[in-house]
Amino acid sequence: MNPASSTSATTPPPIIDCDIHPAASKAYPVEPFIPEEFREAMRQGMGGEPGHGHANPFGVTRRDASCDDPHQVGRDHLDRYGIAYAVLQPPGMRVSLTHNIDVGSGKARAWNDWQINTWLAADRRYLGSVCVNVRDPDRAAAEIHRAGEHPQMVQVNVGGDSDDLYGHRRYFSIYQACADMDLPLCLHPGSEGSLDSSTPVGRPSTYFEWHTGIPITFQAHLISMVTEGVFAKFPRLRLVLCEGGVAWLAHTCWRMDKNFKALRATTPWLKRLPSEYVFEQVRLTTQPLEEPANPEHQLQLFEMIQAHRTLMFATDFPHWDFDDPTRVFPRKIDAALRRRIMYDNAAELYGLPPADEVTREARGALTQV
Amino acid sequence: MNPASSTSATTPPPIIDCDIHPAASKAYPVEPFIPEEFREAMRQGMGGEPGHGHANPFGVTRRDASCDDPHQVGRDHLDRYGIAYAVLQPPGMRVSLTHNIDVGSGKARAWNDWQINTWLAADRRYLGSVCVNVRDPDRAAAEIHRAGEHPQMVQVNVGGDSDDLYGHRRYFSIYQACADMDLPLCLHPGSEGSLDSSTPVGRPSTYFEWHTGIPITFQAHLISMVTEGVFAKFPRLRLVLCEGGVAWLAHTCWRMDKNFKALRATTPWLKRLPSEYVFEQVRLTTQPLEEPANPEHQLQLFEMIQAHRTLMFATDFPHWDFDDPTRVFPRKIDAALRRRIMYDNAAELYGLPPADEVTREARGALTQV
Repeated sequence: MNPASSTSATTPPPIIDCDIHPAASKAYPVEPFIPEEFREAMRQGMGGEPGHGHANPFGVTRRDASCDDPHQVGRDHLDRYGIAYAVLQPPGMRVSLTHNIDVGSGKARAWNDWQINTWLAADRRYLGSVCVNVRDPDRAAAEIHRAGEHPQMVQVNVGGDSDDLYGHRRYFSIYQACADMDLPLCLHPGSEGSLDSSTPVGRPSTYFEWHTGIPITFQAHLISMVTEGVFAKFPRLRLVLCEGGVAWLAHTCWRMDKNFKALRATTPWLKRLPSEYVFEQVRLTTQPLEEPANPEHQLQLFEMIQAHRTLMFATDFPHWDFDDPTRVFPRKIDAALRRRIMYDNAAELYGLPPADEVTREARGALTQV
Repeated sequence: MNPASSTSATTPPPIIDCDIHPAASKAYPVEPFIPEEFREAMRQGMGGEPGHGHANPFGVTRRDASCDDPHQVGRDHLDRYGIAYAVLQPPGMRVSLTHNIDVGSGKARAWNDWQINTWLAADRRYLGSVCVNVRDPDRAAAEIHRAGEHPQMVQVNVGGDSDDLYGHRRYFSIYQACADMDLPLCLHPGSEGSLDSSTPVGRPSTYFEWHTGIPITFQAHLISMVTEGVFAKFPRLRLVLCEGGVAWLAHTCWRMDKNFKALRATTPWLKRLPSEYVFEQVRLTTQPLEEPANPEHQLQLFEMIQAHRTLMFATDFPHWDFDDPTRVFPRKIDAALRRRIMYDNAAELYGLPPADEVTREARGALTQV
């Protein structure tokens, strides 16, 4: 089955996968892209990032898959499911945790050049995420302007763990650069608990507990960005909440809207209901999608969070909790809604061709493999 | 209107209010109940609790109400709405934050004796919450056995902010005492951010932001208690999540259940799906109830969190975001579900008489006023 390269009438609609995790490998190493001035520092261990101490005891990568060769992933993942585009979430999303700020910024640049020269060069279906060191906002802004010029770079990545809530103005130069370059900001987890506890009241014991709590950081950052007025002040900014769950968005919006009524005098920059900023400027990726026992609840939840415009499909390939595009949604999901989640919402956000032009596009991409 | 003291056929069903906030006052001071050995320490300022720095700019108490006189509240709040029972959430819920551990435990005892000798003595409709210092778990357990003997003491109170997640075994002697005394544990917010940030990634800027994020701590504590096996190890323990929102319970349960499938080998004490422990052993109070623009969403959410057995009504009298029992629910709510939320769920949890016996009960209570 290779729907992306077929033009038959039975071709299933194309898919955009907003979250795959390429790894460096012997064939595609990152070292050549480390700026020369930081190579000695890296060799001396000054580029290490703190760990959070919560390892998945069964491994994070699926035992039947790997993601360290763009050509193999093109066949094993993109071709297999008819994925027209896949957004890379590179290892560089953790660079902001590096204690040596210059090394952190150097690593961000390296992961960007690595993406451009390996994965993005190998196949036009891959789309890149600009890595930045949020502890060095001005340099991060410059890097967004530099690496963001590449036509396959579609967003700017930051990690869940951070020194400060993302509504703080220390990060505003990053948001200005995103808005200037028309690149959404993408928040991805993976490092919560590296700098401080991953909850406000202590450290989880197990990976199970830690992983279940990932939406906690996402809620904190989103509430911060909305109430501090990031979306009001940067109306062109778009935020992608990637791999942090989706169902919590309903109660977070309801709670913000309710409090806004009584407390809006303290946030005079908010001219509309908090949820209006969210539904207009925030998008979420599906994986890991919550799976209530009653599939009806899933569909109700989709309506509550306006999934027809906010939700974008993702697999998290090749990780352990990978969501299979053929199985992840309830059977009763409306076909038009499914298409918007599987393709249209991401295509509109990232400026990709509409679904009906995709077969040709994807075929073009495949000839490069 | 005084439905609680009327026996007419048009009497509306009785209400249990699970969250009212009595304050000490000149007429009802707490000082006489401070154990003598700590009075000097209190006078010297050793009993102060750290603050969290997020004041509601408009004040926390409604300008048209106060809650420092049990008789006045009986008329102004209980009689007005036909509230058959009201559970006190006394100021003592913050004592665990006191740096001086002995003073903290002394204050817990004082707030219990204050409740018993003022509010509980004044009106049988008031039900008390045993305050404990969770930093001194053995003394807390002893206090639960002592103060919990009073027939109007119906639960044990702890605050959202804490040194550790409530799944940690340092708290197990408290849970054992709760189970032994058949008293639910009640988690109430109000102090998040006093010990450390109220989010894992920095401190909110405004009360609006801080208050919106209160469910963050609740999620962290609940995930901890479930995955660490508190409910499996203390099958008689019941947990009340008070004033922390309710709509987040759906996604938290879904996420726990999904992760349980892959990661349950790391929590071998869990013999059932995480959500099964939750729906059997956890209850939530309504206020502040999320209010989606589409009331249908509220009712769908109620079904997702099994509101017919988990949800218990509360007003948070006399606080700024008080929920009026006559207005808080969507009009289309099923009458039987409404009755369970307004009375039955709390009556079953706290061992109170069934609704049809309440008029007589409440009349009895009123004669004491």
